[in-house]
Amino acid sequence: KMLKRVLCTVLFMGALPSLVEASQGHISVILLGATGDLAKKYLWQGLFQLYMDQVSSGHSFTFHGAALTALEPGQRLMFDVLKKLACPPDESPDRCAVLKDQFLKLSQYHQLKTAENYTVLNREIQTLLRQEGLKEAGRIFYFSVPPFAYTEIARHINSSCRPPPGAWLRVVLEKPFGHDLESAQQLAAELTSFFKEEEMYRVDHYLGKQAVAHILPFRDQNRQFLDPIWNRHHVERVEIVLKETVDAKGRTSFYEEYGVIRDVLQNHLTEALMFLTMELPANVSRAEEVLQSKLQAFQSLRGLEKNSAVLGQYQAYASQVQEELQKTRDYISTTPTFAGVLIHSDSLRWEGVPFLLTSGKALDERVGYVRVLFKNRAYCTQSETLRDAEHSQCKAKQIIFYIGHGALNTPAVLVSRNLFRPVMPEGSWREAGGQSNLRIFGQPLSDFYVYNPVKERDAYSVLISNIYHARKDFFITTENLLASWGFWTPLLDSISQQPLRLYPGGVENQHLLDFEMVSGEVAFTLAEPAELLNPNRQMPNDYKMVQTKFRQSPLVSAWSEELISQLASDIEKTAHNSVAQSGQFHLALSGGSSPVVLFQRLARHHYTFPWKHTHIWLVDERCVPLTDTESNFFSLHNHLLQNVRVPYFNIHPMPVHLNQRLCVEEDRGTELYAKEIMALVANASFDLVLLGVGTDGHTASLFPHSENGLEGAQTVVLTESPVKPHQRMSLSLPLVNKARQVFVLVLGKGKHDITTLLSRVGHQPRKWPISGVSPSSGQLVWYVDYEALLG
Amino acid sequence: KMLKRVLCTVLFMGALPSLVEASQGHISVILLGATGDLAKKYLWQGLFQLYMDQVSSGHSFTFHGAALTALEPGQRLMFDVLKKLACPPDESPDRCAVLKDQFLKLSQYHQLKTAENYTVLNREIQTLLRQEGLKEAGRIFYFSVPPFAYTEIARHINSSCRPPPGAWLRVVLEKPFGHDLESAQQLAAELTSFFKEEEMYRVDHYLGKQAVAHILPFRDQNRQFLDPIWNRHHVERVEIVLKETVDAKGRTSFYEEYGVIRDVLQNHLTEALMFLTMELPANVSRAEEVLQSKLQAFQSLRGLEKNSAVLGQYQAYASQVQEELQKTRDYISTTPTFAGVLIHSDSLRWEGVPFLLTSGKALDERVGYVRVLFKNRAYCTQSETLRDAEHSQCKAKQIIFYIGHGALNTPAVLVSRNLFRPVMPEGSWREAGGQSNLRIFGQPLSDFYVYNPVKERDAYSVLISNIYHARKDFFITTENLLASWGFWTPLLDSISQQPLRLYPGGVENQHLLDFEMVSGEVAFTLAEPAELLNPNRQMPNDYKMVQTKFRQSPLVSAWSEELISQLASDIEKTAHNSVAQSGQFHLALSGGSSPVVLFQRLARHHYTFPWKHTHIWLVDERCVPLTDTESNFFSLHNHLLQNVRVPYFNIHPMPVHLNQRLCVEEDRGTELYAKEIMALVANASFDLVLLGVGTDGHTASLFPHSENGLEGAQTVVLTESPVKPHQRMSLSLPLVNKARQVFVLVLGKGKHDITTLLSRVGHQPRKWPISGVSPSSGQLVWYVDYEALLG
Repeated sequence: KMLKRVLCTVLFMGALPSLVEASQGHISVILLGATGDLAKKYLWQGLFQLYMDQVSSGHSFTFHGAALTALEPGQRLMFDVLKKLACPPDESPDRCAVLKDQFLKLSQYHQLKTAENYTVLNREIQTLLRQEGLKEAGRIFYFSVPPFAYTEIARHINSSCRPPPGAWLRVVLEKPFGHDLESAQQLAAELTSFFKEEEMYRVDHYLGKQAVAHILPFRDQNRQFLDPIWNRHHVERVEIVLKETVDAKGRTSFYEEYGVIRDVLQNHLTEALMFLTMELPANVSRAEEVLQSKLQAFQSLRGLEKNSAVLGQYQAYASQVQEELQKTRDYISTTPTFAGVLIHSDSLRWEGVPFLLTSGKALDERVGYVRVLFKNRAYCTQSETLRDAEHSQCKAKQIIFYIGHGALNTPAVLVSRNLFRPVMPEGSWREAGGQSNLRIFGQPLSDFYVYNPVKERDAYSVLISNIYHARKDFFITTENLLASWGFWTPLLDSISQQPLRLYPGGVENQHLLDFEMVSGEVAFTLAEPAELLNPNRQMPNDYKMVQTKFRQSPLVSAWSEELISQLASDIEKTAHNSVAQSGQFHLALSGGSSPVVLFQRLARHHYTFPWKHTHIWLVDERCVPLTDTESNFFSLHNHLLQNVRVPYFNIHPMPVHLNQRLCVEEDRGTELYAKEIMALVANASFDLVLLGVGTDGHTASLFPHSENGLEGAQTVVLTESPVKPHQRMSLSLPLVNKARQVFVLVLGKGKHDITTLLSRVGHQPRKWPISGVSPSSGQLVWYVDYEALLG
Repeated sequence: KMLKRVLCTVLFMGALPSLVEASQGHISVILLGATGDLAKKYLWQGLFQLYMDQVSSGHSFTFHGAALTALEPGQRLMFDVLKKLACPPDESPDRCAVLKDQFLKLSQYHQLKTAENYTVLNREIQTLLRQEGLKEAGRIFYFSVPPFAYTEIARHINSSCRPPPGAWLRVVLEKPFGHDLESAQQLAAELTSFFKEEEMYRVDHYLGKQAVAHILPFRDQNRQFLDPIWNRHHVERVEIVLKETVDAKGRTSFYEEYGVIRDVLQNHLTEALMFLTMELPANVSRAEEVLQSKLQAFQSLRGLEKNSAVLGQYQAYASQVQEELQKTRDYISTTPTFAGVLIHSDSLRWEGVPFLLTSGKALDERVGYVRVLFKNRAYCTQSETLRDAEHSQCKAKQIIFYIGHGALNTPAVLVSRNLFRPVMPEGSWREAGGQSNLRIFGQPLSDFYVYNPVKERDAYSVLISNIYHARKDFFITTENLLASWGFWTPLLDSISQQPLRLYPGGVENQHLLDFEMVSGEVAFTLAEPAELLNPNRQMPNDYKMVQTKFRQSPLVSAWSEELISQLASDIEKTAHNSVAQSGQFHLALSGGSSPVVLFQRLARHHYTFPWKHTHIWLVDERCVPLTDTESNFFSLHNHLLQNVRVPYFNIHPMPVHLNQRLCVEEDRGTELYAKEIMALVANASFDLVLLGVGTDGHTASLFPHSENGLEGAQTVVLTESPVKPHQRMSLSLPLVNKARQVFVLVLGKGKHDITTLLSRVGHQPRKWPISGVSPSSGQLVWYVDYEALLG
């Protein structure tokens, strides 16, 4: 009834001819949680802005605030908010006053609690529209409620409040959308049972920040300049940063569950990352193309590892948590309040370019930006003092999307003057006037072309407008969401026990949170200060020299990292000796997971390794195609061969795949490999064989009680593994024992039992094949890490 | 007689007990060209310094100045020089006065013109030594004479002036040592006929510059800091620079012959480059190890191409040449007075790191330095205004060997404070005291640890001391010299007709000589100004459009270099299209010499090529092992595959070598290859086949009247070539014609006749197999260079 009255009043006034026509139909906006903080602060203002912008669009509107509160107190609360709605500075006060009055009249409060409430609301809307002869265009339900209420509300909307056929439904959802991949999948599955994908608008308010929202249009409008340089050959690094000065005080019940990665990186910063890295679709205003392209960009991201991130926690956090969550004083929080994460994309465009995502609370300043720093490829012959500074090719070249706060205190797009003068849409961005003495990112502001929005707009008002325009590319689709969680969850899992660096907060943090990239990982630059929170570390330095022999052979032992580095050096030394003696180095490598770190170390740190003269052989192989991720050779190729320069001719994968089938005896793969060895390796005596040990005492692919390979004349054999894939090809024990050197690598706690056992038993190859390794005239060396040795 | 008198006087004075003992024997130093400019300016002072340093070494000395001038005027000239010898500031004036007096008495002038003169000199030395009962330790002949006089002098020394057995001979040679590889080889061969390698000391006075001479010791003494960072992963770029303000006025007769590359880059800057890039020998004070390592570093340098350099000439040079060399006004000099050269080393350590060598006359300042700039891998969380500046990890990190002049005006070693505090030998380098307001390489001097020599020493006095100590690693060996010329000569040849950028000279050059690196090449940053000297450019633009069809198919024609670059781009474009469509790109490549330049271009200039998704197939192969230099695959591997990242699994050489034998039918290699194609290439339809044409009209290894491959169902065939090696494997014509694209590349005058013929004949594959190429549903494009097309 009220609604009808409202609408009549408006119509009677005649101030809005478009409403009379309403040729596009009527839109009902239902704001759930209408009296909550977010609604008060942003959403009502955003809806009012929408109304002001679209009042002449041909649509008519009504606005329905809803909450659990009963009608009267709810109405009072809501209209208190509405009365405070501000007119934007660029709007004429007269028009605004009229529109605000109308907006108030078009707004109404509802208690939405029971199923019945929703049915009533639906009926009211239908009745109104029928009475006024309006066609229904669609309904927007904005969920500004806690996530636990989502399912219930979604069910009610779906069952009782859908618009009639021909009109659309848009439900707007606020984060959090789960806290890891599994919970996000579950939540998504529930929502999907009520809504179609195109009906859901998941909000990441960063996508409404003007500078972030302009990344794609900027890339599109400046294709001519960016096409040649928007790639790994020209971009040195990208920084995506959101620094806050506030801490989590008063919000720890939420924060303790989420932490900085879930709160900021997984959503806001990741979305900005995608806008930067995705391939530009032909048409950036087609939402489907943009979303598709973004999804592809996710697929190119390289998986994160523990050392992809540095983590910190401000010192006061612990006591805040103890106080607010009533924890005891010995409660230790492992929630990070600061994170720096190094991300790589393996796309051809971005391979090797570091993307640094950084965010934290209690930092020295509040600022958000996306900074693309280009490589400097110029040599300036003239000495620096004599140069025209602004346009010098030797100055840093950067493009910055300045999100807000910080020194500029306004959204901005900055492009170095020595890069290009960007094309900017005149209506919405204008060049900043006047010179300032500000320095930004190491340069005076005058080194940049600087643009600010003609009209600064709040993120929510941008997003509400985008909901109205059905610009789904400004929202997070289910696929997008799951891709993001799929990317972040492994890191979240692996760091849950990671030590955090404590920081005092604010300016006092000094260099404590600076970090550096080394070989695809990050680490804090400064050594850990004494007060560092470090629950999980004890260095048993005394262990180092416990034993020097193992099974009568030399033993090298250390923590795994140190051990691998020693092993890699010893392999290089052996290689140089062999090349010096015979011009070649024949190296047979084992599969499995232990050697992976070794391969990486060899690829990244051994520049003088004589790869050109090295022949690579396999100790054993699984009977799968070489391109199968299970293949030993595939792993070797991935981690070593593709990063070094071993000539094609010197690479000898095992022929497990002949005549389009795997390890069939009559294809005689073993014979073929044996012949290749005979033809190239003098005396079939490898210069170095690298072995591992299984928990069952197997080595190579020689398993306990194997019929083949433990003895006899055959040098290459087919064997059966107790675990999948069962079929294997392997060098035989007698062939291994002909080698000039054999190194056995044993890593990890899981190998402690077998290591202990091996230290006691004798030569029993049928029981424990590894015990049969005993080079007839060569040398055997054991590389066993402390965890395997000492448990 | 005089010599004897001199020595007697000295002995009588008793001031030099060491001379009496002379337990190490006597050294005669013969300075040829004793009254020339170099001798006056540096060499006598260097010899005097040697005497002061070594007077107590146990050696006795005599110094023999020699020239063509007759005895008396020669004596007078020489002693005028000697009288002006200065005492070094750190020497006590008393001691110096005594030593100078002694030095004068030990010095003597000789006219050395005829063979007889040399015999006499030899006799005098012998007589003196006999009389004084001195053992002869050795003789140093310093050639400070024009190179045309070398051979004559060398012959005389060798035949009449060698020291007796047991004593050594050292001949010191001054550049130029030839002006290209051939002339250097010739000169070296002549010298080698008179002297042994260990007797020759070729001077590059840069190796005597204190900052240059300290590069290797610095690397050695700071191994702990440099080992992890002295490589492509950490070094961003290296600049080796020698800028001069003077021009060539008065020296154009020399300069016009040599130019800046021969004058400065081939020798001085290259030597510095080698000290930076060579692998550190275990013992840097062992000359042989250093020399060996340096030679290896030469082998890793990537060949230079025309576009590896930017060249300039100061405007006044032309008129100076016209005046000094009496040339007419229309004489155009193509001698560069400025060069910026981009060098790459293909060693694993340095691959991809740009080394920029720059030198020129008439520039804005005089300065020489070697600057190693490290990648910045730090992210500084704290805002820049709040940071402790000097040690900030976000400041540029550099190591600079400052050779002299410029802002510092002294040799120096500078290391960024945020890098490490270097180990420096206390006796010879000391930390610079006091703070200065200087800025250097974009940073205040206070950002660096700065070291200066304790005692500044002139390069020649350093070198003379090194000759005395037989430190051959401070000199240019024959191998070293030829390696350097071998490296530079191709560039010198290719740029002889290159246009030069004219520059006004001095400060006015502004940005005119700034240059930039793009895809492994360099180019001036600013567009060419109108006044550019550009003598030799005539682009036969008219030719370009002579024909656009050849045998009814599209024709692309240009000069060969441009053609190859177009072809490479078209291949990349095809690759991207294929990958976009099917995720893969199947490329079949031909052997022969024409594609080699194409392979190189693809390897060096096409960074965005989707190699990861490309499969490489062979169009044809010779029946030789793949490691044979005759093998098509070997050439493909050498020029392309080893420089790009095609996964091992995507490389498909033809199986010409099975069961240890070549192309035996019953080994069924053709069947094997056909099966592999069937298994991987959809529809056996390659995305692109690259063909060539033989002078007999053959293509692939399909020769006229071949029994196999011209028709029929067989897709891979064995064929016979009229030339060796006769046996071949080839794709068949029907298979080639199934391809989606076929490009035919025809290069060079030698192909003009067959090109002309082909333009006239129809489809006659038995006579001319190439005429049978006619893709059934694909596209055929001809790439024919002007020489093949127009003769």
